[in-house]
Amino acid sequence: MRNVTSETITQAFLDYCSDDTDPRLKFVLEKFANHLHDFVRETNLTHEEWRKGLELLFAAGEMSTPERNEFILFSDVLGLSSLVDMVNSSEDGTPSSVLGPFHILGAPDAKVGANLKGDNEGTTVVVEGRVTTTDGTPIEGAELEIWQTADNGLYSNQDEAQPEYNLRAHMTTGADGRYLFSTVRPAPYTVPDDGPVGELLNATGRHPWRPSHLHFIVTAPGHRTLVTEVFPSDDPYLDEDPVFGVREQLVMQYQKREDPSELPDDLEAKSDIDLPFYVVDFDFVLSDGSAA
Amino acid sequence: MRNVTSETITQAFLDYCSDDTDPRLKFVLEKFANHLHDFVRETNLTHEEWRKGLELLFAAGEMSTPERNEFILFSDVLGLSSLVDMVNSSEDGTPSSVLGPFHILGAPDAKVGANLKGDNEGTTVVVEGRVTTTDGTPIEGAELEIWQTADNGLYSNQDEAQPEYNLRAHMTTGADGRYLFSTVRPAPYTVPDDGPVGELLNATGRHPWRPSHLHFIVTAPGHRTLVTEVFPSDDPYLDEDPVFGVREQLVMQYQKREDPSELPDDLEAKSDIDLPFYVVDFDFVLSDGSAA
Repeated sequence: MRNVTSETITQAFLDYCSDDTDPRLKFVLEKFANHLHDFVRETNLTHEEWRKGLELLFAAGEMSTPERNEFILFSDVLGLSSLVDMVNSSEDGTPSSVLGPFHILGAPDAKVGANLKGDNEGTTVVVEGRVTTTDGTPIEGAELEIWQTADNGLYSNQDEAQPEYNLRAHMTTGADGRYLFSTVRPAPYTVPDDGPVGELLNATGRHPWRPSHLHFIVTAPGHRTLVTEVFPSDDPYLDEDPVFGVREQLVMQYQKREDPSELPDDLEAKSDIDLPFYVVDFDFVLSDGSAA
Repeated sequence: MRNVTSETITQAFLDYCSDDTDPRLKFVLEKFANHLHDFVRETNLTHEEWRKGLELLFAAGEMSTPERNEFILFSDVLGLSSLVDMVNSSEDGTPSSVLGPFHILGAPDAKVGANLKGDNEGTTVVVEGRVTTTDGTPIEGAELEIWQTADNGLYSNQDEAQPEYNLRAHMTTGADGRYLFSTVRPAPYTVPDDGPVGELLNATGRHPWRPSHLHFIVTAPGHRTLVTEVFPSDDPYLDEDPVFGVREQLVMQYQKREDPSELPDDLEAKSDIDLPFYVVDFDFVLSDGSAA
């Protein structure tokens, strides 16, 4: 249209979309254009601010690789990634949380009771729980992918000093739906803040520290795949996670213990565990559905 | 916050911004987060759609160079660039329009009446008008930057066959505020559609053709700088400019003429102009203000 104005431009954009545009795409674009244009109209965005935004995107493009994707990081610190998790989360199962960039395929199989800590330094934690349906029935054969940082706050694929697949495992529950492993307490770490995302955090006085967490992907036939993280209740950054990953139901209690005889017999490290150690009980509830 | 939900995440984002965040930045981010989050909530954006959006941004980053900036092109075809122009446009002067990526500094000085067409093929157009204040007073010493495509739809910096600075000029108005030049009729051309922006245009059935236009930057002391484009009234793409640059007040009439004796005497090409030729009258009205 030749008489496009700040009031008609959104409709002009929609009118340009042909009638055979995929209806869902058209709906998403309509909402996107409405919000993008309202944002400009409500802020009277200046050319300088517009250029600054484009510079941040250009700088993100220059910095990004498949391994270090600054656009995902922008999505994370703006709450976009977590919000997409939330609106797609099941109502009745364990809440999902961000996948993050450190998951890799091919983690070794580990039996229920496995010792993931091995030679890793740090506080020992025994993590135990069940995978159940929403009515509490244990799920046999549920599969858990587990990954976490070492005591230095680094994942194995960030740290050449760690063995490949250090603190990563693939575990399958038995008839009782139970999983169990001993590991090292994960450490808080910073999201990468040496690029445009760091510039945004700086300008708004935000720190880059994520609370420590264990990552899980839990799958079982006939159930929705759960991608989540579990956080210790005493982490100093629990209330200010820069990527908005914490949910109340994902906070676990670390219980201090001194007596190894209380530990389950199938815990591989039971006979030579360091004292004191911590115990965590955390059950995963999978919603009905199909695995994604 | 540890109990962040899809309803509280926007406030959580705002709460993270420290009290000494620049107030304008905080205001812009508040509006941005509100709209970004509402977009997700209103669409129930899926993980697949979120990934697709991030893939488009990543691909834009891979493709972008300072000369070919795919993010600016996204901004253009989404109406963002033009909307920023509109909300910053003066109410009482000639409307502004997109600068585009083809402006270069250093265009040669040309006298009022200059022949820009030279050896260029195509239809001859004589463009004439005045630069005035909002009350119609001619502005002496106003400066015009002029650039346009050749008859093949390419700018000189896109086409090795054209001389450097072909169809580009810098002209200063005399006491009567008048400018005048003869040139070739510019041609429609496509925005680059071989990247992710092209993918978006394709998916929505949009074509990439911009209506033909002459670019101008008009400056004068004590007046707001005007960045604009002027379009011929008979261009086939006038009602479907992919970058939303057309405004009714920026449409000029091409008037066909056969008699060179009617042309102004200070037109350099007057004595050997090709017949028929076209005449365009277009005045630029500059608002009061400071040059940007």
